[in-house]
Amino acid sequence: MLHLHHYRLCPQSRGVRLLLAELKAETTLVDERPWEWSAERAALNPSGELPILVDQSKSVVIAGSYAIIEFLSDTNPVGSVLARDTLDRAEMRRIIDWYHGLCQRTVTGPLLEAKVYDRFRSQEKGAAPPDAGTLRTIRSNLRYQLRYLDHLTEQRNWLGGDALSAADFVAAGHVSVLDYLDEISWAEISSAKTWYARMKSRPAMRALLAERVPGAAAPPAYYADPDF
Amino acid sequence: MLHLHHYRLCPQSRGVRLLLAELKAETTLVDERPWEWSAERAALNPSGELPILVDQSKSVVIAGSYAIIEFLSDTNPVGSVLARDTLDRAEMRRIIDWYHGLCQRTVTGPLLEAKVYDRFRSQEKGAAPPDAGTLRTIRSNLRYQLRYLDHLTEQRNWLGGDALSAADFVAAGHVSVLDYLDEISWAEISSAKTWYARMKSRPAMRALLAERVPGAAAPPAYYADPDF
Repeated sequence: MLHLHHYRLCPQSRGVRLLLAELKAETTLVDERPWEWSAERAALNPSGELPILVDQSKSVVIAGSYAIIEFLSDTNPVGSVLARDTLDRAEMRRIIDWYHGLCQRTVTGPLLEAKVYDRFRSQEKGAAPPDAGTLRTIRSNLRYQLRYLDHLTEQRNWLGGDALSAADFVAAGHVSVLDYLDEISWAEISSAKTWYARMKSRPAMRALLAERVPGAAAPPAYYADPDF
Repeated sequence: MLHLHHYRLCPQSRGVRLLLAELKAETTLVDERPWEWSAERAALNPSGELPILVDQSKSVVIAGSYAIIEFLSDTNPVGSVLARDTLDRAEMRRIIDWYHGLCQRTVTGPLLEAKVYDRFRSQEKGAAPPDAGTLRTIRSNLRYQLRYLDHLTEQRNWLGGDALSAADFVAAGHVSVLDYLDEISWAEISSAKTWYARMKSRPAMRALLAERVPGAAAPPAYYADPDF
């Protein structure tokens, strides 16, 4: 039995959860609090970053979304993780890197800090509400992210190319977190919306979208609805 | 013939250059200015991030260090890119991710911004010198990075395990940039120093360390010396 150490609103954790569910890999979820340091978590992944995939015997510990996705690709060669063609694989990895790198660094990461993690920290320290200037910068970066998603989905069947791949699940991890936080204006990005409606219809995604996150504000009413 | 779009002090570019040289892949370098947006670069990699590997016909464009390293692994299965064993590969990827992620985000990235990129930008805008508080935070993160490198190299022959791999070249990319910027106190980290001395002795690394970067302050005297 596999255990996945995750946080419900961690976009990288969501991407890997969706991928594991698509591969029908039975996984027990272990909740982590990414805004707190934990000795147990650092023992599994010294960077403290989520997700972390562990088998029951602890003889297998795969730390971080990059290593997990490539591990699932190595161990499921005919699954829907990555393409078989070398150049198609490279393009899917570019998209994965786009979300793990640029989107996480300029949008999803700072937004989670400002709207969720700081809220949990403030229960001890009494922190201030999100800074208006910080939120403005993040939202400007978000508009660029959404325009690029719309541009990609205008041109392609799936984000990495013709086939559904890990790139779609990684992107859906980020998009679903941004949507939970009510930060997406879907009316302006119709191609991205059509792609996300197809993602929302998948059983793995439906289960994930049915969850609510304790301590975070409720998502918008259409959040879990594939017909939005 | 391959072209690598890079910047001489970009740690990810350096890691990939070292790997290409170890694989004896003849590559022409194309200089980029990462502190400036460029339409030509965005056409090759929409995120604008370096490095980018392009063949002469432009039928192959591999964008970003993650996709390039995995592409080199896919296309050189018996080379020294990644291990063959699945769990060893996962550990090497964890180390690569450590440098691409945590080290870049908390140390190398902000240090390059403060000490190099802002300097180029300021030639147009008249920016202020590096902020003392920012540098203090970065240097505290750097001490943690160096302690972890020392810890790993105490326990292992190479960073990813028993064998030299892409993890060592990726780490050497970051370490060599930090050393160029004269930010490393080698006396306190003897295991890391021994590992880096072995890396410095490799022909690919010697060629890289012989370069100087126009517009950046000169590196310390011992920078290129394997016996430091």
